[in-house]
Amino acid sequence: MKKKKILIAQGGGPTMVINKSLVGIIEEAKKNNYEILGSRNGVNGIVNSRLVELTKIDKKKLYLVENSPGAALGSTRDKPDENYCKKILKILLKEKINTFFYIGGNDSSDSLRIISETNTDMQCIHVPKTIDNDLVLNDHTPGFGSAAKYVASVFAGINFDINSLPGVYLGVIMGRHAGFLTASSSLLKRNANDGPHLIYLPESNFSLDSFLSNVHDVFIKKQKCIVAISEGIKFSNGQLVGEKISKLNEKDAHGNVQLSGSSMLGDYLSNQIKIKLGIKRVRADTLGYAQRSFLGCVSDVDQREAKKLGKESVKFSKKYDSSFSMCIEERGKNLNTYQVKIGKNKLIDIGGKTKYMPDYFINKKKNYISNTFIKYALPLIGRKIPDFGSLI
Amino acid sequence: MKKKKILIAQGGGPTMVINKSLVGIIEEAKKNNYEILGSRNGVNGIVNSRLVELTKIDKKKLYLVENSPGAALGSTRDKPDENYCKKILKILLKEKINTFFYIGGNDSSDSLRIISETNTDMQCIHVPKTIDNDLVLNDHTPGFGSAAKYVASVFAGINFDINSLPGVYLGVIMGRHAGFLTASSSLLKRNANDGPHLIYLPESNFSLDSFLSNVHDVFIKKQKCIVAISEGIKFSNGQLVGEKISKLNEKDAHGNVQLSGSSMLGDYLSNQIKIKLGIKRVRADTLGYAQRSFLGCVSDVDQREAKKLGKESVKFSKKYDSSFSMCIEERGKNLNTYQVKIGKNKLIDIGGKTKYMPDYFINKKKNYISNTFIKYALPLIGRKIPDFGSLI
Repeated sequence: MKKKKILIAQGGGPTMVINKSLVGIIEEAKKNNYEILGSRNGVNGIVNSRLVELTKIDKKKLYLVENSPGAALGSTRDKPDENYCKKILKILLKEKINTFFYIGGNDSSDSLRIISETNTDMQCIHVPKTIDNDLVLNDHTPGFGSAAKYVASVFAGINFDINSLPGVYLGVIMGRHAGFLTASSSLLKRNANDGPHLIYLPESNFSLDSFLSNVHDVFIKKQKCIVAISEGIKFSNGQLVGEKISKLNEKDAHGNVQLSGSSMLGDYLSNQIKIKLGIKRVRADTLGYAQRSFLGCVSDVDQREAKKLGKESVKFSKKYDSSFSMCIEERGKNLNTYQVKIGKNKLIDIGGKTKYMPDYFINKKKNYISNTFIKYALPLIGRKIPDFGSLI
Repeated sequence: MKKKKILIAQGGGPTMVINKSLVGIIEEAKKNNYEILGSRNGVNGIVNSRLVELTKIDKKKLYLVENSPGAALGSTRDKPDENYCKKILKILLKEKINTFFYIGGNDSSDSLRIISETNTDMQCIHVPKTIDNDLVLNDHTPGFGSAAKYVASVFAGINFDINSLPGVYLGVIMGRHAGFLTASSSLLKRNANDGPHLIYLPESNFSLDSFLSNVHDVFIKKQKCIVAISEGIKFSNGQLVGEKISKLNEKDAHGNVQLSGSSMLGDYLSNQIKIKLGIKRVRADTLGYAQRSFLGCVSDVDQREAKKLGKESVKFSKKYDSSFSMCIEERGKNLNTYQVKIGKNKLIDIGGKTKYMPDYFINKKKNYISNTFIKYALPLIGRKIPDFGSLI
């Protein structure tokens, strides 16, 4: 019998655990004695014939790779149209690939849908990753837990910092459409006096007046105010706040406004607080790429799940002939114990769709999260962080 | 015999280990059966009578406190003049304090100098801390090692990120006058292909043309370029680059320009690269307060030294009657083994002075550091970080 041959690629923004999924696929494929190819820089490496042999890669190398952030095969921001997908398919057929594993977000899963619809014999398997946690029909996505742990750790430290030297602190967090990562700023908060005190999400309409009034109220009461703000906050007319105040208006190949490159949102809101509320000590930090690639702040739960999703995707590929998107099945509203189940979705149900924070994760005033969100997200950041203390 | 009574305060920007020094002083003072008072928010709490009793604080609380970032007693940005110092002295005498321990940077040591010169019977002991590492006659300062570890870890992660999705990355780092923290971005670099590829320090004159030409050269060669830039970079006429391009020009009570609140330096340089070099994928991150307060990325060497400096300051206070500033003595140019010695300096030799990166820590082109800097700084970030790998 002819050996099965697979191709693996990684797409979109890297995460701290995307290599865990990669190594999960490779290890399981090696067990099955498959031939394994990798593509450099995602689909871009397929159409440009930059494929690498992974069949004989040794264990030690895999161990180093799986514990590194970033995409070990390289990634791409290319969003293939039908023509591009036909080129991919041509190479897959030429290379006699049986199954194509693509680790990526919802854009990557959409590319797989187009390829598998063009040739239903080509098995395409999407292995999800994203720090934004915005894939529909997924309880959560590998990559999110580690990013959430980093953001929560930044705010836990900021809390001590602002207790030392009181003032207003604004932290601007990644997430174009969904507020999960911004909401995670609250995960290591110990009591009501701790920050963050206010959280602004893309899911709720932003009003500068309410924002200033909220900051004012907290500051009067506590003589300090720590705020988490999503880069994707929008006015009620749907316009991005960051877009309005930014002269930069670049778009990447997916048509998304590149907010992250600019720190203007934080600087602008910080100046508004200084000018309109007369508060002197205001600091705005726009959290950077460290959110997705910081070395040394990874969630062990996230690592395990990312690897498991990789391994299971190979098992599923044997069990089912079709193309599909792997997932961690939704836990629903019963969040008392943490137990996850690996499953799969149809590619057409994932690609190009966005999951938002449900209403029951947000407070009524739309300026903070609910306790249900904490119950949902806390297990995802893994091992408990030790308790801390202060003298005042 | 009457019990000895001491007062402890913390001043300036907090660090990840400033509470180690605090707990070191408290533990050693308890051993000696001293009465211990703390002041809330540094010298501000002395003149406003916000003193707290610390004599009976229990071990468990101390354990929590010493492992927390931020100043557990609160800090202050007040920079006392002679009049303010006289008020401090009055309270110290009223409270019958024998020794005043002030944990802080060079501004704090200058306040102690004024107090001890006004009344030579009041023993004032400065216990150094700063993430900037800019205290003269100190080999290095507690707080720096942990901040350096955080910055090095950010850049090690960025290196994997930019390997995944090539482009130009600019990271703007704290440090008004001295470039030690910016230079530390290089500490986890494994080979010449890794970033950072360029480092710009406050000690070297900045020229936009050379900067763009350097970025261009690296990008042509490697298809990527990772740059570490100090917030304190200056033009040859001494003007801060950040000041020139920023409309904000706020000054804190020390007369220092508040650069950190603004991310304009990074945004400006990033736009220059896009416009003048035509490179599309450019990201600028201005590293935030996390540099001094991130929870969970502390140097064990820094922790040990900060605590030791606290403990030794109490021992020194018994051995010497005078006022002084504690220090880690300079290792000089022999950096082959890591061994430090605790010593002391005259207050007048520390206050208001700034240590800069010596020439032998900087390369000839003034756009990177020397190997000697690595030998100097690497032991300070503590336990080795595991090795990592990639496939391309």
